[in-house]
Amino acid sequence: MKRFLDLGDFSRDELLSLLELARRLERQPEPRALTGKILGLLFLNPSLRTLASCQAAMARLGGSSLVINPGHGSWQLETRTGVVMDGAAAEHVREGIPVLASYCDALGIRAFAEGRDLAADLAETTFSAMARLTDKPLVNLESAVNHPCQALADWKTLDDLAVPRGGRFVLSWAYHPRALPLAVPAAALHMAALRGMEVIVLRPEGFALPAALMERAQRAAAASGGSVRETAERAEALTGADVLYVKEWGATGCYGDAAADAQLRSALTAWCVRNDWFAAAPDCRVMHCLPVRRNCAIADEVLDSARSVVQREAYNRLPVQMAVLHQLLRS
Amino acid sequence: MKRFLDLGDFSRDELLSLLELARRLERQPEPRALTGKILGLLFLNPSLRTLASCQAAMARLGGSSLVINPGHGSWQLETRTGVVMDGAAAEHVREGIPVLASYCDALGIRAFAEGRDLAADLAETTFSAMARLTDKPLVNLESAVNHPCQALADWKTLDDLAVPRGGRFVLSWAYHPRALPLAVPAAALHMAALRGMEVIVLRPEGFALPAALMERAQRAAAASGGSVRETAERAEALTGADVLYVKEWGATGCYGDAAADAQLRSALTAWCVRNDWFAAAPDCRVMHCLPVRRNCAIADEVLDSARSVVQREAYNRLPVQMAVLHQLLRS
Amino acid sequence: MKRFLDLGDFSRDELLSLLELARRLERQPEPRALTGKILGLLFLNPSLRTLASCQAAMARLGGSSLVINPGHGSWQLETRTGVVMDGAAAEHVREGIPVLASYCDALGIRAFAEGRDLAADLAETTFSAMARLTDKPLVNLESAVNHPCQALADWKTLDDLAVPRGGRFVLSWAYHPRALPLAVPAAALHMAALRGMEVIVLRPEGFALPAALMERAQRAAAASGGSVRETAERAEALTGADVLYVKEWGATGCYGDAAADAQLRSALTAWCVRNDWFAAAPDCRVMHCLPVRRNCAIADEVLDSARSVVQREAYNRLPVQMAVLHQLLRS
Repeated sequence: MKRFLDLGDFSRDELLSLLELARRLERQPEPRALTGKILGLLFLNPSLRTLASCQAAMARLGGSSLVINPGHGSWQLETRTGVVMDGAAAEHVREGIPVLASYCDALGIRAFAEGRDLAADLAETTFSAMARLTDKPLVNLESAVNHPCQALADWKTLDDLAVPRGGRFVLSWAYHPRALPLAVPAAALHMAALRGMEVIVLRPEGFALPAALMERAQRAAAASGGSVRETAERAEALTGADVLYVKEWGATGCYGDAAADAQLRSALTAWCVRNDWFAAAPDCRVMHCLPVRRNCAIADEVLDSARSVVQREAYNRLPVQMAVLHQLLRS
Repeated sequence: MKRFLDLGDFSRDELLSLLELARRLERQPEPRALTGKILGLLFLNPSLRTLASCQAAMARLGGSSLVINPGHGSWQLETRTGVVMDGAAAEHVREGIPVLASYCDALGIRAFAEGRDLAADLAETTFSAMARLTDKPLVNLESAVNHPCQALADWKTLDDLAVPRGGRFVLSWAYHPRALPLAVPAAALHMAALRGMEVIVLRPEGFALPAALMERAQRAAAASGGSVRETAERAEALTGADVLYVKEWGATGCYGDAAADAQLRSALTAWCVRNDWFAAAPDCRVMHCLPVRRNCAIADEVLDSARSVVQREAYNRLPVQMAVLHQLLRS
Repeated sequence: MKRFLDLGDFSRDELLSLLELARRLERQPEPRALTGKILGLLFLNPSLRTLASCQAAMARLGGSSLVINPGHGSWQLETRTGVVMDGAAAEHVREGIPVLASYCDALGIRAFAEGRDLAADLAETTFSAMARLTDKPLVNLESAVNHPCQALADWKTLDDLAVPRGGRFVLSWAYHPRALPLAVPAAALHMAALRGMEVIVLRPEGFALPAALMERAQRAAAASGGSVRETAERAEALTGADVLYVKEWGATGCYGDAAADAQLRSALTAWCVRNDWFAAAPDCRVMHCLPVRRNCAIADEVLDSARSVVQREAYNRLPVQMAVLHQLLRS
């Protein structure tokens, strides 16, 4: 395994064996597995879980890490090609990434969607260009429409909680003051389909996920024995749900148009998950990748209830990160 | 020892034994004591000494550390409860702290006073709520009205310099362009009282420390054989002083009212410690927790003289931090 | 070796032996050489290569590092002496540096030129004052007119590429939207002269390097068998050149006057290195310390060609940093 960029790059057996490795490292620490190895972390966007779990994973395995935060002590980075760099960015990723890679044994890169051109973001234009800049082991720490480490941690969380492989997984849109990227909904949708679940995307009109993401998930579901559909009917979607996976995202019909998006979402503040959502799904768990805006996307009463498994999800970033780095740096 | 939040949580013997451990680790390094241990550092406010001494302490003991700086590469954190999070903060400490704790073996948290409601700050409402969010070993790296690591380093400094247990310890207010929190004066006052010193709080009218802090120190002094009083008369206070502990803080009578505070302090720029303060205390040492604004709070002529022991104080953060972390992570 | 502040502090043999050590550490890792050692890094300015290569070097040698970024999670630092600190800076380097040094085994400091007073910057007034604040091993990570780690990495790059000792080294000015410091051109000029090369400084009128820098390089060249001259004639300078070392810098005739500098440079956007510069130097390599603004200073067509060795230069920061830290902390 040379890169961990997308769950879709791996067979189901490879993913199951990564999950098994994560569980093994949880039970049997390997404090010398990565002795002398250095992970370079390039964060073009903020992070708490991803940053801390990567650094802790390297430390738990005996390695070390270093962090570059453009704009916070390091140069702002340009990602566009062919431009005359007379603006704020002092350095281009075409220099920055290979240089950083040359000091390290592996790289992790986070680069959120630019949020202007949906087709470009769906094609992962920026992240793919960055990934081509190094031959070193590379981890996608969230790109325009992917977040494979989060998705694998979510899969482990579902396993930990003994959620049936074919259980009902409702991916629901939730309110947020601004349009957020598609990375996590895209990754969670794909993961649940790969796992073989009955996946329902619940979202208000105007917030349907792009067809390319739905179709990809449908193909994954077809191969795994699962299913994928979408609806705007909350009560129907949630009836008998095993898991409600909550996420905020932008309106795809007016992608990159903040004003139009704001107008659409202004009528949707009621899409804040509350206890009364679960009338017909008493045992339904609530997942969210975090960070979450309390009482915007999910009410306190839900986050602070036994239904919420967001802490376990976040914790699972650590064993999953350990497994991914172990695979990348030992094999 | 599970938490290091307040010197008042420990008996005098426990504190003396922590100080003894600090001295032992100074003389006899233990470069493997914390092998494999990870300290998570959450800094809601800036730091130099606290940050660097914690990281160096973990490294000197064979462990490692990771740093989360909300707003500088990590999400801004909300600390208030029950709010609709539609502002700048993307994440609540109710998620952020347990998540970070789940990756680490111990946490250190810095969260300055909010500086709006004196009663709430004196009650440590915010820090206590954060501390309740994790069961992991926890270090208070400065809260609203406490800074126990600084206080213990100051105690060690007094011991290092052979300042008599019953010596005269003058805690003096000094000028600063803005109102600063009460954490360090509160912690230094309490520490000197616990040590058994003759403590005099020297401050201009309007800058008396809150009664709750004075009374707490008086109770500590009663138990240790020391005393605590306050005055606005500099010459009297300093006569025969062993130590002048300088600190800037806000006017407590108009706590949270920046304009009223500014008006009060505008007349007090002469409260900058100069050589002529020491006419009747020739051997008096000058302490300050740093950072210090030169020629605002203390003049160059004092900071650059042999009287100043601010470097030793700052250095002592390291052995004290080592002792605290050793106790938290080995026992 | 106690400090690494300027190549000029060392004999030619000492420099050659540092380069030999860098090559040895490249071939034969010493993962335990600096076990237990801590490098404190104080960055008053942004960094990617310097930061990452220092942290990676310590990790590769078994040590650790910690980073203080004033203004990004740490206090802003004052460097001027004698001022009343009532502005943005909460701490003076006279406290900050010795304190940080007291926690660490060595320090690295980056402090760019203030860019107001050319004589003061040429005299390294600020950096020298900071260097005097600690006795610990110290590395100059870029000061007003020096960048010895970059210069040594550049020397190693020339050796790696088998550029003849007496080869033609053209240091060329290039366009940048703003005046940049003289540190890198000064260091590269001096290095090439020390190495014994035929050095030509190619720059437009108004951008001649200060006489003090030219004379210093001429003295170095005289001792090493090289030569140093300057010209504004690009074609003549580049004919038969082995290396074109590209760098942006400010107009020294109006140093500190941004408006005058901007007017001068506005006519010089054609000083962007393109393929047609090399008509009479087909095998000429292109060096640049990075970060570089693509299509301002150097065109994509050059940076992306085989002629460019900027990646090797940047990579060489790592073995050179390892050699410097090995020497400082082992001897």
